[in-house]
Amino acid sequence: MEFRDIVKASFQEAQSKICAALEKEDGKQKFGSELWEHKTGGGGNTRIIVHGDVLEKGGVNFSAVEGGIPEFMKAQVNEHATRFFATGISIVMHPFSPMVPITHMNVRYFETDAGDAWFGGGIDLTPIYVDDEDAKKFHQGLKEVCDQFHPSFYERFKNWADDYFYNEHREETRGVGGIFYDYIRPDEHISKEMMLQFSLAQTQYFADFYTQLMAKHKHEVYTDEQKQWQLIRRGRYVEFNLVYDRGTKFGLVTKGRIESILMSLPEMASWHYQHQPAVGSAEWNTLQKLKKGINWVA
Amino acid sequence: MEFRDIVKASFQEAQSKICAALEKEDGKQKFGSELWEHKTGGGGNTRIIVHGDVLEKGGVNFSAVEGGIPEFMKAQVNEHATRFFATGISIVMHPFSPMVPITHMNVRYFETDAGDAWFGGGIDLTPIYVDDEDAKKFHQGLKEVCDQFHPSFYERFKNWADDYFYNEHREETRGVGGIFYDYIRPDEHISKEMMLQFSLAQTQYFADFYTQLMAKHKHEVYTDEQKQWQLIRRGRYVEFNLVYDRGTKFGLVTKGRIESILMSLPEMASWHYQHQPAVGSAEWNTLQKLKKGINWVA
Repeated sequence: MEFRDIVKASFQEAQSKICAALEKEDGKQKFGSELWEHKTGGGGNTRIIVHGDVLEKGGVNFSAVEGGIPEFMKAQVNEHATRFFATGISIVMHPFSPMVPITHMNVRYFETDAGDAWFGGGIDLTPIYVDDEDAKKFHQGLKEVCDQFHPSFYERFKNWADDYFYNEHREETRGVGGIFYDYIRPDEHISKEMMLQFSLAQTQYFADFYTQLMAKHKHEVYTDEQKQWQLIRRGRYVEFNLVYDRGTKFGLVTKGRIESILMSLPEMASWHYQHQPAVGSAEWNTLQKLKKGINWVA
Repeated sequence: MEFRDIVKASFQEAQSKICAALEKEDGKQKFGSELWEHKTGGGGNTRIIVHGDVLEKGGVNFSAVEGGIPEFMKAQVNEHATRFFATGISIVMHPFSPMVPITHMNVRYFETDAGDAWFGGGIDLTPIYVDDEDAKKFHQGLKEVCDQFHPSFYERFKNWADDYFYNEHREETRGVGGIFYDYIRPDEHISKEMMLQFSLAQTQYFADFYTQLMAKHKHEVYTDEQKQWQLIRRGRYVEFNLVYDRGTKFGLVTKGRIESILMSLPEMASWHYQHQPAVGSAEWNTLQKLKKGINWVA
């Protein structure tokens, strides 16, 4: 079995496990499943949950596609490369309750016919109200996952996430960050098998951590004002995904399946002109924590 | 008085007239007014109406800013240019009722210190339900405005709008189009004074046509399902503005006032996975008309 097929099969298995874990914690709805084909080769399985008990809208997308190297990628790959293969899992969860954070996870593997190969991915958490205890626990867990593979990973990928999950035009981070990495090319220090295991460890951590978070917060009561704040924060999420997100851009440029790409957008989002939370309010406190460079594992 | 100051003063006056006309037809709310300064020079006046009788959220933005030529514009301007001046009006109206179309208008003038100068702009209509009579009247009126200035304008700018106001990833136009043009450099055939008059004729047409449309549809009753459809169509509007809109991109890259740039986003928008209107429904009929190349003045 070629390495790329091992990655593909491992990601498919991880997709099933993640969906099963989320369904169990949601307790009401099941993920649907739609198999689709990519126009230049390969395809995917888009699994969406809608109107569960906890999850209003969520997607766990698996894909393994191939095709000619798109123009915009030519600078990134070996000059002799003519075709690419890319496989990955991409997840976004939008819960009903503003007490349960939005979350995202992505792991992906990319290779060309000229021998280029790299891994990318990340996990980040977007609380509507930042809970310090959750943020610390989230980052501590990510650090433990990273430390199993390389001592530099957590710090490097945490800083990368701060820079990446950032709404430049708002000068605020999307949430409390997490980890992000791209173009990690296996070498003598980090083998491709190790990078695959690192990817899979993230999928496991994602399922464990996020279902615990759902369980912790799903029964909390909330007000209409808190729901309004959630819709505004979701608006910022939409801004990030449509303006900056690499996966979305890659999908749009390569003419991917649009409903799978934009499953990341919430069922409802809101924009108010010059919305400014009152100084000292819970909403204002959250904004103070949507900054780069906060050390959550100190 | 330098030409650029005449343009600026004319646009400021047009902004006032447009707001007055929209306020009169709305009948409940007035536009606020916020004066702001741009970090590299100049500034603007952002006028927003919120929760009127007809208009849920609308903005009429005027700006006249200057600064060094941004990197991404260098290919467009004379190689000796070091500074730009840009003035314009940008409008988006989001009515409460799905029976009243969303609309947008923009006129702008750009010049550099190396003698480069051009006009850009456009008007387009985004009905939630396409009404053939309105679309025809809208285009007929635009053609009359264009024909006063140049026999080629309507056809050229109408086709440009079809290409520009297009969600490539959805393969659908934003609405029933209108006119769009950019980089129209005054020459021996079209003087700069004529282009200014053309811009002002558009502002007048916009105010006249859109207030008539508000009057025609504002009392129509609508169902919850029709409101839902509006929220979905607004989601597409958000997609266009964040992914393709040149004004938004220019604003984000030049670090403009973000609340003025993103006033174009609706108070509420919605995304449903794989929403497909039933064949033959009013929503489905509208989708059939969100295509390029429809001749509304035939």
